[in-house]
Amino acid sequence: MVQQFKKRSQKAGLPPGTFVHIGDRLAKEVRMEVINYSEERLEKKEIKSIEECRPFLERPDTVTWINIEGIHDVKKIEEIGMIFGTHPLILEDILNSDQRPKMEDLGEYIYTVLKIFNEQKGESLKVVSEQISIIIGGNYVFSILEKENTVLKPIRTRLEAGIGRIRKAGPDYLAYAIIDAVVDHYFIVLEAFGEKAERMEEASLKNPGPDTLQAIQDFKREMIFLRRSVWPLRETISSLARSESPLIQDGTIAYFKDVYDHTIQVIDNIETLRDMLSGLLDIYLSSVSNKMNTVMKTLTIIATIFIPLTFIAGVYGMNFKYMPELEWPWGYFGVWGIMLVVAFLMVIFFYKKKW
Amino acid sequence: MVQQFKKRSQKAGLPPGTFVHIGDRLAKEVRMEVINYSEERLEKKEIKSIEECRPFLERPDTVTWINIEGIHDVKKIEEIGMIFGTHPLILEDILNSDQRPKMEDLGEYIYTVLKIFNEQKGESLKVVSEQISIIIGGNYVFSILEKENTVLKPIRTRLEAGIGRIRKAGPDYLAYAIIDAVVDHYFIVLEAFGEKAERMEEASLKNPGPDTLQAIQDFKREMIFLRRSVWPLRETISSLARSESPLIQDGTIAYFKDVYDHTIQVIDNIETLRDMLSGLLDIYLSSVSNKMNTVMKTLTIIATIFIPLTFIAGVYGMNFKYMPELEWPWGYFGVWGIMLVVAFLMVIFFYKKKW
Amino acid sequence: MVQQFKKRSQKAGLPPGTFVHIGDRLAKEVRMEVINYSEERLEKKEIKSIEECRPFLERPDTVTWINIEGIHDVKKIEEIGMIFGTHPLILEDILNSDQRPKMEDLGEYIYTVLKIFNEQKGESLKVVSEQISIIIGGNYVFSILEKENTVLKPIRTRLEAGIGRIRKAGPDYLAYAIIDAVVDHYFIVLEAFGEKAERMEEASLKNPGPDTLQAIQDFKREMIFLRRSVWPLRETISSLARSESPLIQDGTIAYFKDVYDHTIQVIDNIETLRDMLSGLLDIYLSSVSNKMNTVMKTLTIIATIFIPLTFIAGVYGMNFKYMPELEWPWGYFGVWGIMLVVAFLMVIFFYKKKW
Amino acid sequence: MVQQFKKRSQKAGLPPGTFVHIGDRLAKEVRMEVINYSEERLEKKEIKSIEECRPFLERPDTVTWINIEGIHDVKKIEEIGMIFGTHPLILEDILNSDQRPKMEDLGEYIYTVLKIFNEQKGESLKVVSEQISIIIGGNYVFSILEKENTVLKPIRTRLEAGIGRIRKAGPDYLAYAIIDAVVDHYFIVLEAFGEKAERMEEASLKNPGPDTLQAIQDFKREMIFLRRSVWPLRETISSLARSESPLIQDGTIAYFKDVYDHTIQVIDNIETLRDMLSGLLDIYLSSVSNKMNTVMKTLTIIATIFIPLTFIAGVYGMNFKYMPELEWPWGYFGVWGIMLVVAFLMVIFFYKKKW
Amino acid sequence: MVQQFKKRSQKAGLPPGTFVHIGDRLAKEVRMEVINYSEERLEKKEIKSIEECRPFLERPDTVTWINIEGIHDVKKIEEIGMIFGTHPLILEDILNSDQRPKMEDLGEYIYTVLKIFNEQKGESLKVVSEQISIIIGGNYVFSILEKENTVLKPIRTRLEAGIGRIRKAGPDYLAYAIIDAVVDHYFIVLEAFGEKAERMEEASLKNPGPDTLQAIQDFKREMIFLRRSVWPLRETISSLARSESPLIQDGTIAYFKDVYDHTIQVIDNIETLRDMLSGLLDIYLSSVSNKMNTVMKTLTIIATIFIPLTFIAGVYGMNFKYMPELEWPWGYFGVWGIMLVVAFLMVIFFYKKKW
Repeated sequence: MVQQFKKRSQKAGLPPGTFVHIGDRLAKEVRMEVINYSEERLEKKEIKSIEECRPFLERPDTVTWINIEGIHDVKKIEEIGMIFGTHPLILEDILNSDQRPKMEDLGEYIYTVLKIFNEQKGESLKVVSEQISIIIGGNYVFSILEKENTVLKPIRTRLEAGIGRIRKAGPDYLAYAIIDAVVDHYFIVLEAFGEKAERMEEASLKNPGPDTLQAIQDFKREMIFLRRSVWPLRETISSLARSESPLIQDGTIAYFKDVYDHTIQVIDNIETLRDMLSGLLDIYLSSVSNKMNTVMKTLTIIATIFIPLTFIAGVYGMNFKYMPELEWPWGYFGVWGIMLVVAFLMVIFFYKKKW
Repeated sequence: MVQQFKKRSQKAGLPPGTFVHIGDRLAKEVRMEVINYSEERLEKKEIKSIEECRPFLERPDTVTWINIEGIHDVKKIEEIGMIFGTHPLILEDILNSDQRPKMEDLGEYIYTVLKIFNEQKGESLKVVSEQISIIIGGNYVFSILEKENTVLKPIRTRLEAGIGRIRKAGPDYLAYAIIDAVVDHYFIVLEAFGEKAERMEEASLKNPGPDTLQAIQDFKREMIFLRRSVWPLRETISSLARSESPLIQDGTIAYFKDVYDHTIQVIDNIETLRDMLSGLLDIYLSSVSNKMNTVMKTLTIIATIFIPLTFIAGVYGMNFKYMPELEWPWGYFGVWGIMLVVAFLMVIFFYKKKW
Repeated sequence: MVQQFKKRSQKAGLPPGTFVHIGDRLAKEVRMEVINYSEERLEKKEIKSIEECRPFLERPDTVTWINIEGIHDVKKIEEIGMIFGTHPLILEDILNSDQRPKMEDLGEYIYTVLKIFNEQKGESLKVVSEQISIIIGGNYVFSILEKENTVLKPIRTRLEAGIGRIRKAGPDYLAYAIIDAVVDHYFIVLEAFGEKAERMEEASLKNPGPDTLQAIQDFKREMIFLRRSVWPLRETISSLARSESPLIQDGTIAYFKDVYDHTIQVIDNIETLRDMLSGLLDIYLSSVSNKMNTVMKTLTIIATIFIPLTFIAGVYGMNFKYMPELEWPWGYFGVWGIMLVVAFLMVIFFYKKKW
Repeated sequence: MVQQFKKRSQKAGLPPGTFVHIGDRLAKEVRMEVINYSEERLEKKEIKSIEECRPFLERPDTVTWINIEGIHDVKKIEEIGMIFGTHPLILEDILNSDQRPKMEDLGEYIYTVLKIFNEQKGESLKVVSEQISIIIGGNYVFSILEKENTVLKPIRTRLEAGIGRIRKAGPDYLAYAIIDAVVDHYFIVLEAFGEKAERMEEASLKNPGPDTLQAIQDFKREMIFLRRSVWPLRETISSLARSESPLIQDGTIAYFKDVYDHTIQVIDNIETLRDMLSGLLDIYLSSVSNKMNTVMKTLTIIATIFIPLTFIAGVYGMNFKYMPELEWPWGYFGVWGIMLVVAFLMVIFFYKKKW
Repeated sequence: MVQQFKKRSQKAGLPPGTFVHIGDRLAKEVRMEVINYSEERLEKKEIKSIEECRPFLERPDTVTWINIEGIHDVKKIEEIGMIFGTHPLILEDILNSDQRPKMEDLGEYIYTVLKIFNEQKGESLKVVSEQISIIIGGNYVFSILEKENTVLKPIRTRLEAGIGRIRKAGPDYLAYAIIDAVVDHYFIVLEAFGEKAERMEEASLKNPGPDTLQAIQDFKREMIFLRRSVWPLRETISSLARSESPLIQDGTIAYFKDVYDHTIQVIDNIETLRDMLSGLLDIYLSSVSNKMNTVMKTLTIIATIFIPLTFIAGVYGMNFKYMPELEWPWGYFGVWGIMLVVAFLMVIFFYKKKW
């Protein structure tokens, strides 16, 4: 968690416009792919340099989608600026992987940053976030991911197969499709969270221990993290839906409104999870206290039953010269009888009182 | 509860405009009924295909109400789009049964989604929600429910009997009548919740146990669920009441404002219930702790009374050669006397201190 | 409390404009009184039918105040609609006694609903709320109360005596006077609540018991109820003060602003009470826990003092053949001495530690 | 605290415009002073009747400050209305000493009410609030205090000495100077509160007792009271700073903005204190619980050490015929040895576990 | 903490425009430096009096940066007013070192106050705040720090080296660079806080003690302090970014927006830390309670095992004449066997129950 506090401090003091990649550095090569399509044709090409996509941009009536996976090679990102005239601060935002989701209309292009969430496989549920930058231009769309990710695969498939409106529509619709895929992906993560919340509730009720507390706290933190990332999404997508930029056509607005509705649902689900989580701590604390109470009660009842019996035994252990009961032949067995009766009555009493 | 997190993830990755029914799939046939009425006449017909309602729409000065109960037959919903020109995203919303209540003015028609709540019979109070989509057109109203429901029955009866303004007014008034029926239905559910809250409060005070905690948590969740569904209602109905669409006549606005007032009351009641619930946990925890305290106190008092007595018995169990009391003939009975006095004084002391 | 959830469900399914009285049905007759006044003259008359007030309305330059106490006779309320042309939804609101405070400007008249609070005499402080509907017309004011109430008595007295501006001003000033009386009445209820809060705080500190918890919860609920009724008042009176209706004269606006200030003060007091109440639970819980701690500590100290003594007695109760102390003539008294010293040292130790 | 709830109820039912002084009635005479000044001259006079200040008002290019300390003499306040044409509702507000801070622009004059806070000397910190009403006219300023107060003394001194802008500026600057003095006075009270909070935190940590709880609650209440009085100040002074009244000159606006900044700082400090206070209860409860835990733990450890020893002594107190240990000559001392070893091991064990 | 409450009260009663330095008084000399630069040239000079920077201001097409470190010499600040015509209230704000961050556009110049945070070296993390005032004029920038600070060093270096846009741009860009450096510095402090929060969480889980509670409270307070200082920053920088002043060029607006985004991130991080902190108290309290429970449970189990054994020993310590077991030769060892079995069974039972 604290990791996010560290990232930024590396850059303190550097002049703005210094392109430094802030984030986990990956050994892998940066993957870059261009897809150029119109209703009739589609061309796909892996590229090594942004320069290579220039010829596609000049084809009339086509949309060019440049998908970059990996931002650790600063030079490749700088190239975007040189060819497309992107503002240095935008390039800095692309490289700096802890941006808050936001949308900026720069006239010639629209820049949007979102977060993709992936579950990290492992025993405890962890969420890994990744940044996706989208640049919507007049006839191109850039999507720049922090690392390789399968989230955009269905869109590539749809484009190639020509399913739905996607091949007929412009770059704004492609951008919508990307954003929709990202937001829909949240539901998968939330589903995992919901299941985990249920499992933890059961664990809290049945077998509460210090681990459970730690797990609740970890879960809470994951939720805080998720929540802080998703809340600004609302505003981001709302500005897209209300955008008056000529880059976004009237027909696409309805689609952006639809994603907006999904975002609201994501937020609703997160808030519901949050309410469940705060209940979880109550359940945990109550369960721990209940368990402790049961233990202490049982132990105290055992002690309470034996204390009077020990007293009786103590009485007949006294060494008085004149103690008539001691002389009685049935005295010893009588005392056993009395002790059993006393114990029995106490058990009955505790049972009746439902202790 | 977690169910709601699951529904959506099924659709992640699919292109928009893919009509997939998200929700519980029901075996039953979809029920479709057309009611065509004017002030003088009313005609009612069960239909098998949306196509069949076309002739009714062409009758001048009549209102056509098409009521569909069941949305699992995707084709029938698609037909609406083909005949009435409904936007594909609206059709998707109708099929997707976990919409947030909302209202969309699309010019030629107004689309509204609401939630109907029904109590599920059973030992513990459960609320089942169902989605109702309403499309208000120039001379028709669509009401599309997720499954069969009796909530619209009184409106059908009123239409047939011609009670009140309903037969004289247009489709906007019919839509109002449907929404009013849905919102009034909330009061029935809230009444059940209110009664349950009272029963739980009594249980928390008199017989608190781990079950009570579980029940409070379940209740809380139901409330979270209800609340999240009802809050957006406020905005939805408010937009209807403030709508400037020509589809809603000036005279009907007052009626929509009236429903709005009811919605505010529903929200007020939910907030009151919520405040009661948060008090419930306090009561429960205090009661558990009180009960535990009483038990421990009683046990400790018993132990505390016997410990000094056991000590006295222990003293006269010592084997010193010279212990004058042991020789006294009344020694044994004297010790009994002392022990009784000590026990009595302690009981008096505890009683006085009100322990 | 739950009562409020019940009221509304009776009406679910009925067509709007069905006049059903929702509320406690009272056996008493409906009291109706007309007061017609100008600066010079005042006429007062008990009436049996709304019809009877018609001649008063025709007198030029006079104000007619029709005060109705009791709304269970639906027909009498319907009559208002027939004679004054009141909208059916307004009549429904008058009859439906669980309205939220609101103000509606209908052009020819202004409709306002408020709540009057009365303390119910009895051992525990209970607040009974009653609805008052006010209709401000061009030359008349309707005030319709749920049952008989003394809250408007001072206004009648002032009118008859001609004290202050009231006889010189129009119906808007009369309406102001009524609303002012209602709002000022809140201060009396709040005073009682404030006193009760103090008494409960003292009880929580000195003698906390399960009853106190119940009482705190009941008080909390009363406060929730009061709060929910008063909050919308703010908006209601604010709309009156900012009203641009010709029915409210410029000179009267200042008076409505004054009532608005009082409303803010009422809300402030309620919020203060609420903060006090939340502190109350903390005090109660701390006191209970303090009391319990004292008890347990005392008992444990008693036990702890006797346990080592019992051990010493046990040692000399052993039957070893060679135990030199047992032979000593002063052995027994020496042991007593040691035991007394041990007990004394422990008491000193506990005292020093301030246990 | 409850006192504030009482004040208002005395007035319920009275017609508006009835001048009744609500507040503590003081035996002392009302002090009234007029200061008439221009850049060159300054005249000061104690007056007995408002009438006496009329000649000063007619002097051209001078500002007249009428300072009234004491509002229990209703007639003197009524005189203001007669001579200056002040609205009856304003006069009512001046007399009614539990006004919320507010500002009202009445065209010819601006009316502002503020609260002055004074620490009440005594063992526990108490804050006494006093109302100050300020009327800013074209060439006069009224300041009406509830009782005598030293808060305005520095302004009088500054006026007489002619320090700063005050003698050169108009009545708006004088009003500013008064308000600035009132707001700056808050910092003194807040300083005392801050010191008290620190003392209480120390007491909570070192010596928590029921008194501490009571003190925390009392402090909390004082804070609630202070907070409710200061919050509306923000709005009040903000309206003065944004006022478009010709009574407030453009040059003075900057000064009002400065006071506004101070008000924000006051609110910030109050919020900080509030956060500290809520932490205080946590500290107190933790300390009490810690102290209790230490006591119980120590007592239980003592008991736990002696219980096995008593058992050993008990074993050798048995009367079996054949018990070889009893015959051993070193048996008794051996048992003592064993018991010491057992006790020692237990102490070591508890120490190692850091109990 | 309380220190902040003290500062202001020193000034209560003084006329506005009295230049008094409020803050810690430092013995060191005030450091003043002028840097005059254009794209081609840069001149740097240590000055003793503001007067000395006048010649630089007259050079055309150059920017003059006057950096003052130390505000305790009131005369030097007064000089600014005399030479640059700065408003007395602005000078007062510069001297008064507990300003809230704010931005004021005074037409000819823009005044901004921010807080710089520095970690104080020492065992516990402490944050020391310092005020920086920035005045942006047509061809000059003033930066006035409370004491010497290294935060602006990188800017000086960048200016001298001519790295980036800074030498080509105007005073608005220089001001941006200063503000950016200040805001970026927050990330360093937040990183330290994040690390501390993690360390404290570990301590709370593993070794909770009264010190931990104190540390959590101290941390909480530091956070409250930081939060209150940073929140107004948002508004301050937002007004700079939305400023329509001709002093801020269109090209620089984008840079201010970028700082705004950083500010939002700072606030997000603070809120995340705050959520972590509130969880910390829960963890601490649970850990303390868990630890206590384990201790008490172990002690009670020890006692519970020995109580029945002591009872058995007590039984055979009775002095009845006829007790057959006492005569049995293997009686003593048999009893030992029984006692061992009982103890063993109880241990098994407790183990099985996982106590």
